[in-house]
Amino acid sequence: MRDAVLTGLAEHGYPGLTVEYVAEHSGVHKTTVYRRWGSVEGLVADALDLAGEDAWTPPDTGSLEGDLRALAREVTETFGSASAAAAPTAFIAAAFQSERAAEALHTFYTGRFARCESVVRRAVDRGEAPSGTDAASVVRAVSAPLFFRALITREPIDTPLADQTATAVATAVRAGAYLPDRR
Amino acid sequence: MRDAVLTGLAEHGYPGLTVEYVAEHSGVHKTTVYRRWGSVEGLVADALDLAGEDAWTPPDTGSLEGDLRALAREVTETFGSASAAAAPTAFIAAAFQSERAAEALHTFYTGRFARCESVVRRAVDRGEAPSGTDAASVVRAVSAPLFFRALITREPIDTPLADQTATAVATAVRAGAYLPDRR
Repeated sequence: MRDAVLTGLAEHGYPGLTVEYVAEHSGVHKTTVYRRWGSVEGLVADALDLAGEDAWTPPDTGSLEGDLRALAREVTETFGSASAAAAPTAFIAAAFQSERAAEALHTFYTGRFARCESVVRRAVDRGEAPSGTDAASVVRAVSAPLFFRALITREPIDTPLADQTATAVATAVRAGAYLPDRR
Repeated sequence: MRDAVLTGLAEHGYPGLTVEYVAEHSGVHKTTVYRRWGSVEGLVADALDLAGEDAWTPPDTGSLEGDLRALAREVTETFGSASAAAAPTAFIAAAFQSERAAEALHTFYTGRFARCESVVRRAVDRGEAPSGTDAASVVRAVSAPLFFRALITREPIDTPLADQTATAVATAVRAGAYLPDRR
């Protein structure tokens, strides 16, 4: 079912996704799809909920800059490739049109970034980052410029850009720019 | 005409915007709209082109951190307010569904950020930033975490967050993290 939603989103986008398409491509009867998920919005939200239940953990390279670089490169690998970007881009696009998809996207990303915060906790434990560093802002700052270029300004992203972003954030973290009293 | 496009986008989003709506709300005859703009895509692209022709210039507060802070706060004022965010959000959403809107959005933002680069040039002239600093990345890094939270992770943004973002980027700039050999 989820595969049919992902394929449908990637091929037709949210405006083109229909319960009929999902029923046909999943082999589940249309009546069952309507009864269980209610609508296309329900299908998209359910697929996002499922995506958030995976076993993904952030990289653990032994250094703050190494971990941030690996996180940034993961974003670049996804959104720098048309085929890998199709499904997540379609979810992000769907959230502009459906409140329920927007809530599911929020839950997905806040969950994902909560896992990423262990990168900052380990850096604090190693003495690489000051205690009290705003981990939520740090992990978002590493991904944001890459998402921004790929999906908003619609500019190319690549590995050197991912590394530059990670270096900049790691430098700011080490200098204490993400301590709460600096806000 | 552009006002009718902006109002239509803000009220109905890109999927709900029609040439009929724009004709009715602008007083221009439907036939004329079709002849001149061809389609809704053409209207949206034209409105974005017009938006890019304004006289906006980046802040000039006398310091790098002050300028970056003012830039970040401008993003927060727009995307932190539902009414101010409606039109730009609708353009960004339209770009996910229309290649022509995506190109117009790219042109709009690259033009806007090209103007922002004077903030970094002035900082270099004042000796606040090392010569060779990647100005394009700096000005995007200041806006990106705010756009990212407002439009992708769908989290609240506020002035303290804008200031934190500006401080972090200014710190990284001063430390030379945006020099080309660091990429």
